[in-house]
Parts: sequence; C-alpha cells; structure tokens
Amino acid sequence: MRVGRIAWDGSAHWAILSGDTARLLTDAPWMGGIATGVVAASPRLLAPVTPSKIVAVGSNYPKHAEEMGKPVPQVPRLFLKPPSAVIGPDVAIEIPPGTERVDPEGELACVIGATLSRATEAECLDAVFGYTCLNDVTCRDFQRADGLFTRAKGFDTFCPIGPWIETELSPDDLSVATEVSGTPRAAGRTSDMVFSTGRLLAFISSVMTLNPGDVVTTGTPPGVAPIHHGDEVHVVIEGIGTLTNPVVNRSDRAL
Amino acid sequence: MRVGRIAWDGSAHWAILSGDTARLLTDAPWMGGIATGVVAASPRLLAPVTPSKIVAVGSNYPKHAEEMGKPVPQVPRLFLKPPSAVIGPDVAIEIPPGTERVDPEGELACVIGATLSRATEAECLDAVFGYTCLNDVTCRDFQRADGLFTRAKGFDTFCPIGPWIETELSPDDLSVATEVSGTPRAAGRTSDMVFSTGRLLAFISSVMTLNPGDVVTTGTPPGVAPIHHGDEVHVVIEGIGTLTNPVVNRSDRAL
Repeated sequence: MRVGRIAWDGSAHWAILSGDTARLLTDAPWMGGIATGVVAASPRLLAPVTPSKIVAVGSNYPKHAEEMGKPVPQVPRLFLKPPSAVIGPDVAIEIPPGTERVDPEGELACVIGATLSRATEAECLDAVFGYTCLNDVTCRDFQRADGLFTRAKGFDTFCPIGPWIETELSPDDLSVATEVSGTPRAAGRTSDMVFSTGRLLAFISSVMTLNPGDVVTTGTPPGVAPIHHGDEVHVVIEGIGTLTNPVVNRSDRAL
Repeated sequence: MRVGRIAWDGSAHWAILSGDTARLLTDAPWMGGIATGVVAASPRLLAPVTPSKIVAVGSNYPKHAEEMGKPVPQVPRLFLKPPSAVIGPDVAIEIPPGTERVDPEGELACVIGATLSRATEAECLDAVFGYTCLNDVTCRDFQRADGLFTRAKGFDTFCPIGPWIETELSPDDLSVATEVSGTPRAAGRTSDMVFSTGRLLAFISSVMTLNPGDVVTTGTPPGVAPIHHGDEVHVVIEGIGTLTNPVVNRSDRAL
C-alpha cells in the first residue's frame, strides 16, 4: 500500500494512493485515520509525513565514512534534522548564501507507526509504518567548520521527503541511488549499512521515545557530489520510487 | 506576566499564573489562546511549552568553552534537542544505563511568539514571547565519544523546562545559576555570552524558520559538575524563578 499526503480542495490530506488517484483519509494512518470515501484525481503530492522529530545517523555506509575521512562507527552517530526543513516532492531545495558546497544525500527513511521506547529490533521493525525516500541535504563546508551538523543540515528545504510511504517492503537489501541532473551519483544497497534498520531503531529507542509519525533515516551510501542552481535531484529507492526536487539559489545575503 | 501550563481536571491547560492561582487559557498565547474565566487553585505545573523544535548553542560562555577545552566559537555552534526529552518542574531526570557522567546545564531559554525567518536582531527580540529556565542535561562521556551531541543530550527527561514563562524581562544581563543538592555549581551572567540572545536568534532564523512555541536556549555558564541518583537540581534565573528536578537512575540495561 502507498500512503501519501496531498493538497486537495485547499488543504492537506493523508490518502491511499493508487495509480493516479488518491482515496482520502480522515487523518494519518498512524493516528487512526480511516477512509473518507472521497477520491481525488491527479493530486499534488506533499511530504507524506509531519514528524515531531527526524533522527538521522552519520557514517552508516563504510565507504561513505571512508570518503568523508571518518572511521566506521562503533555505535550509531545520531543527529537530528529540524521539522522546519521538510519539503515535499517537486519543491525547490534552496542553496543558502555563504556556503561553498551543498551535497544531496539520498537515504532510506522509516516512518514510525507506534510509540517505541527501549524496544527490541523485532519490536521496532514491527512498529515501522512504512518506508520512504529522504534527501539529507548538507552544506559540506559548514558541516566541517562546525563539527556539529545542525546548521549544515538544518536549513529550510534541506529535508525533502517522499514521494509516498510504501508499507509492504523489507528494508534489508534495497538499492539506494541519487542522481543529479541525470548523472548517477551516490549509490549503494541497504545491506551494506554498518547498523541495520532494526539495530538503528532499537538503539535510538534506547535513547529517546519515538512517536507515531516520527522519521528515522538510515544514512547515505558513498559517492556524494555537489548540486547547483538549476540542477534536479532524484533519490531513487528500489520498491518505493523516485523523489524529485529542483535546486535554486536563495536570494538573500549571508549573515 | 507569568504564563505556564498546568494539569487540571484531567488534562493540560495553558494559564496565566498569579500567586497560587492559574487563570486558564483556551490555548497557548502564541497560538491565540484567550482567557476562559476558569481559575484553578494550587495547580501542578507542567513544562510551559510544547515546542516543534529546541535549538541550542554550544560554548556560548567563554569560560565554559575553556573548561570544555573548546575555542570560543566564531559563529554559533548549533545543535537540537528532541521534543521527546522535555519534562516539567519536579519530574525526575533519569540517568540512563552505561553513562559515567551526567551534568546539568542551567540556561536561559527563549520561547518564540511569532514566526521568524531571516529576521534582524530587533525583529527577533520583538518576537520572543518570554523567557524560562531550561536544563540542558548532558552525558559528558557520550558527548566526547560521539562528537555529535544528539545521543548525549537527547535522552528522555534530559530537557527540563519551566517553571513558567516570564514575559516582562530583558535577557541582556541576568544571573544564571545551577545548584545541585544545595551546592552552587555553574553560574554566570547572560552579559558574558559570546553571542547575545538577539544575535543568536537572528543567526538561527537565517538557517531555519522558528515557529511560535519553539524554544531557543542560550548556553550554559562555567562550572559544570555531575549529578547522581538522589540529587535535586535547581536552575535559578534572575527575574524568572527556580526550575527544580530530582535525579534518579533508569532501571534498564545499556544497549
């Protein structure tokens, strides 16, 4: 089943997507949403989730750790992206003033379907509502300068999510690829991850309670390359689909 | 004016606090809440805010940077705490298994009252709804091990906020003190901050949109010291009041 969020009749609605139609829901499925009976044709897709937090992990593919000059981590290196960074499919990624290099990072993301606290791997995987594509856009220069990732990865528009949530999927061995204006860039398989989806979720749930609708993203495979004004980025994940976003320069001055 | 959030008649309510009474509001004031006419006596206080994000800053007092072996930063070193970490006054801080050292960090926090994006210092200060005390509880060993701060500062219960929001206050020169079981620990004045409240807010708003009800916390003064099971922590800020939380050990095993 594909679950998305659409703009329809002047507001946002969760919906079950099928071909070119969307069957509207009363709320997010993880909040108990049920079918309304209304069907929308050719809807515009929004980000399929409005998380209270987005938990991410650094260096979770060995060859990406290597290209970043980092050791393969012993425990997951967690960071957060702010909900204010989330955009949906086809919305522009805005490159802020003052940065020298912005990279997309295409990643497999989990949408949490039930509250998770200090849970086992099996409990965590059972509580995943579904999977989607996430682009962990990053100012590489600010990331290096700050050590901390919040500025580098926290700009508005730096967290495209979508195009929808696929509920029937095993996360264990999927191809994850990023393309920039038609050129293949970062690519890998989730089977290469240092910490599997289940281990990541169990680790995170031992630290912080994951709430329904929260997002956990599993890291980027190797091959990062920059984006520029006028590019179009595709994150393509096997069994889910393609998340597409254009790239533009933000017009204001650096602070 | 003091604005808080209280447990009353089985649910949570925002309220205007005066002496030992609370005049209930229909919603948070920054969401347009107005007085209901209902007055509650001797209410139990909850965390006075339910933020979509909590933005914090490392090394914002020169002598705290020094004690942490960090240079005084050239630009604010931003990090995020997850909303799942928030607790109110008198709720226990839980020390997780596996950590060797947990420190409280008492800080002046701003509650945002209006949407802020790429705003000036003056616009930012005008948009602050009020100020409260925040305890940026930190596993010092995990902070050092990870480099990133999310695990170290993201555990459930690691973000006490309260006891209320004080709306009539200038943030420029307030004493900020942390006491552990009656012993004075970290202390300083906000006039010592590397980046003033206005500069911090303007910088953050150039990166990410701040929404009404979001929290920005301004860093801890020097003198950090650990807490242990059985301790009681007070964060005392001039013009606001005292945020008190007991400390207990979490009972589960380290993952």
